[in-house]
Amino acid sequence: MDVNSDLGESYGVWQLGDDDAMLDIVTSANVACGFHAGDPSVLRAACSLAAERSVAIGAQVSFPDLLGFGRRHLAMSPRELRDAVLYQLGALDAFAQVGGSQIAYVKPHGALYHATVADGALATAVVEAAAEYDPSLAVLGLPASQLLMAAERAGLEPIAEAFADRAYLPDGGLVSRSEAGSVLTDPGDVAARAVRLALDREVVAIDGSTVTVEARSICVHSDTPGAVGLARAVRSALDAAGVGVRRFTG
Amino acid sequence: MDVNSDLGESYGVWQLGDDDAMLDIVTSANVACGFHAGDPSVLRAACSLAAERSVAIGAQVSFPDLLGFGRRHLAMSPRELRDAVLYQLGALDAFAQVGGSQIAYVKPHGALYHATVADGALATAVVEAAAEYDPSLAVLGLPASQLLMAAERAGLEPIAEAFADRAYLPDGGLVSRSEAGSVLTDPGDVAARAVRLALDREVVAIDGSTVTVEARSICVHSDTPGAVGLARAVRSALDAAGVGVRRFTG
Amino acid sequence: MDVNSDLGESYGVWQLGDDDAMLDIVTSANVACGFHAGDPSVLRAACSLAAERSVAIGAQVSFPDLLGFGRRHLAMSPRELRDAVLYQLGALDAFAQVGGSQIAYVKPHGALYHATVADGALATAVVEAAAEYDPSLAVLGLPASQLLMAAERAGLEPIAEAFADRAYLPDGGLVSRSEAGSVLTDPGDVAARAVRLALDREVVAIDGSTVTVEARSICVHSDTPGAVGLARAVRSALDAAGVGVRRFTG
Amino acid sequence: MDVNSDLGESYGVWQLGDDDAMLDIVTSANVACGFHAGDPSVLRAACSLAAERSVAIGAQVSFPDLLGFGRRHLAMSPRELRDAVLYQLGALDAFAQVGGSQIAYVKPHGALYHATVADGALATAVVEAAAEYDPSLAVLGLPASQLLMAAERAGLEPIAEAFADRAYLPDGGLVSRSEAGSVLTDPGDVAARAVRLALDREVVAIDGSTVTVEARSICVHSDTPGAVGLARAVRSALDAAGVGVRRFTG
Repeated sequence: MDVNSDLGESYGVWQLGDDDAMLDIVTSANVACGFHAGDPSVLRAACSLAAERSVAIGAQVSFPDLLGFGRRHLAMSPRELRDAVLYQLGALDAFAQVGGSQIAYVKPHGALYHATVADGALATAVVEAAAEYDPSLAVLGLPASQLLMAAERAGLEPIAEAFADRAYLPDGGLVSRSEAGSVLTDPGDVAARAVRLALDREVVAIDGSTVTVEARSICVHSDTPGAVGLARAVRSALDAAGVGVRRFTG
Repeated sequence: MDVNSDLGESYGVWQLGDDDAMLDIVTSANVACGFHAGDPSVLRAACSLAAERSVAIGAQVSFPDLLGFGRRHLAMSPRELRDAVLYQLGALDAFAQVGGSQIAYVKPHGALYHATVADGALATAVVEAAAEYDPSLAVLGLPASQLLMAAERAGLEPIAEAFADRAYLPDGGLVSRSEAGSVLTDPGDVAARAVRLALDREVVAIDGSTVTVEARSICVHSDTPGAVGLARAVRSALDAAGVGVRRFTG
Repeated sequence: MDVNSDLGESYGVWQLGDDDAMLDIVTSANVACGFHAGDPSVLRAACSLAAERSVAIGAQVSFPDLLGFGRRHLAMSPRELRDAVLYQLGALDAFAQVGGSQIAYVKPHGALYHATVADGALATAVVEAAAEYDPSLAVLGLPASQLLMAAERAGLEPIAEAFADRAYLPDGGLVSRSEAGSVLTDPGDVAARAVRLALDREVVAIDGSTVTVEARSICVHSDTPGAVGLARAVRSALDAAGVGVRRFTG
Repeated sequence: MDVNSDLGESYGVWQLGDDDAMLDIVTSANVACGFHAGDPSVLRAACSLAAERSVAIGAQVSFPDLLGFGRRHLAMSPRELRDAVLYQLGALDAFAQVGGSQIAYVKPHGALYHATVADGALATAVVEAAAEYDPSLAVLGLPASQLLMAAERAGLEPIAEAFADRAYLPDGGLVSRSEAGSVLTDPGDVAARAVRLALDREVVAIDGSTVTVEARSICVHSDTPGAVGLARAVRSALDAAGVGVRRFTG
């Protein structure tokens, strides 16, 4: 099982998250590419540290929207999106390479992540950019999303991820953040869910039913107050349960 | 002798220059990287067309300043500049590679071009980014500039360029654009200067004296009203004079 | 009848449209506010010229999207939109006031124009910003749009506009730009339609039926190749037909 | 004596400083205008809170540089700067007015603050924008700066400020931040200096000599870890010493 988190999300004078601490916990780092966060010097630091610690570097590509942190949908055409994604892949990869690594996968951020769950044209645009840049890139996303289906069609490795701290619907979808109980914050609970996801491929949904979730990576958040503690609890529990935590990429 | 020009300088709805026409004339294209001009789709089109026509692609890196078109100095630290340049190199190279080529050289744009003539720290920062990204990159700039000296020290190939349409000072410097007579616009004159630069390595300065200018590339402008006509005149004259016009890179 | 057009849409080195020529033709200028186009110096020039010629100045507020020229929907919350609109109103009004005038109305641009036709929450957000800034502002938009209804509810004067160069549907809506025949380019035709709109309050729809369009302003475009000629034809025809062309605002 | 501080410097998801706490301490708020920090919703919140508490609102105008937080000099022409300042004044004033107040003064931020100490052309550009926008605006800056001299020439009220937490040179200048001992952090020391500045118009310089500093406002910083505590210590000490702390504007 892989553990991934969003990193490189500071910008100039504004700090966000604790990349140094998180890079001791996760095996895959979704590094911002400058479109929703992450200035060039932030990208260098994140990639350099990830490379040193053998953490896989993924390009967390986004709509261009610093003010909205990539969380607002922008109605780009598929062609515009493809080109914007390619731009970000190249920019981030430069830092990954200079750090002694290379980007290993792509994960859309924020509103683009949500859009590529259901919108086939946008999902295809993201995958096209990845495929033309480097066909050995993996694509990280929700199980059964348009994004992972597009990756599969294009011959890119689709990697499904699960969320240990998010409430699930009985159909395997996520409870919307706007609803009560959508986000879990108790480290013990979250860690236990992560272990069950890893060992049994299942999670208890918000209605008490048990849902199967096939995932090769667990996403832990990095930008909430208790993020580091929660991530550490997840990682420790996985290690203690004998789940081999390792990056999904070679 | 190589002929280079600035391309890829449109942005969204705003058009600038005629990339298609210029790419039939020049052998090296200084393509904008999105910091002073050039959105991702513009970069793709420019790189794709350049690759098709075997025109060398150079990264025209810039201070981040769309409104000022990169023509205003921004007091970045050398470290900030190095990282900003690396970001641009990677972004542009993605389009060059996808187009079937790769970036072959770096040329600073606008205020950064002027800054790296005399400022050793900034020149070194640009060269550092180029060297760590790809030591086979060449560096294009003014003869005897700090930029070319830094390139030489770093083991990158320095390529000196000359300007057929700019007036020269007796010491080989350029007459400032703010002075009368600094820019030549007669195609016949400009073409004749280009030929003399190519064959005799010299140019008549503004005071009538003859100056030696060792250059391996001649820069023609792309963003003035008569730019295409002037560039075509230069290219035709060089061809007619038997100057082998070819890209300086392999 | 008023004639309005979009102005102030250059940005730095990039020129768009011919503000000087258009300001001799229109009675109301929808001036960009820097979010989709228009840098501060462009705003000053446009406002100054409009004020000199007694052309009414309207704030053409937009989603923040220079690259997309405001033509791509951005999923801002109503609160974010209200604040973004207020920011633009204040910024533009500074130039209007310094030029000896003041902003007289608000007209959303591009994707925001389209969004506020049907989306009541976004329409209300735009109107709220206008109302809290200056309740004497008028609001310019499509007849029967949510925008004009929100203006009416808020006590701001709603001004309906018609398009002389756009094909109409039988229900009074516009034929989408993506369909053939949606945009008319013959100056004689367009001018004749403008006169009929002004005198008879009707237009012939794309299916040949006659549609009633109650409008107090006619919009002429400024950013197409023949824009100035078309606008001049409209204005001349209106003048010749004895339609009093004057700004709708006092 | 007035006490001023920089506020409104968050941007989107990125928080900076504690505006709520600072607005209970200061009498004048230098609110960012969106060019170095401060999105429209941040501006609204800061202006609204300042207005409620009768804190004077000043426009903290800046070079356009979010990534550098306005701390990097950008070589704008005086004309460009004047227009950029006017844009910011109008934008911020919209929020001040909607909050029930209005901007009362201008204070350049970061690199622009430093530039307008010695550069008369840039100082004049800032003052011109302020004067044409509203001649009743005051201008806040360093004693004897070009900025305050330009304000005086233009008929705008110049307000000199002092820094309780910065080391002074014997000539009344500030010790550069890059030098050891340039910034004082002990609340007791800083508060004592503030009281002496207020009551005796003097401060002990870094060489032990006593320097006269005529100031009508004391600047306290807002973006350092202990900023609120330091500001509170200054305010309490001024109050306890019987210094009437009140805004310099009416």
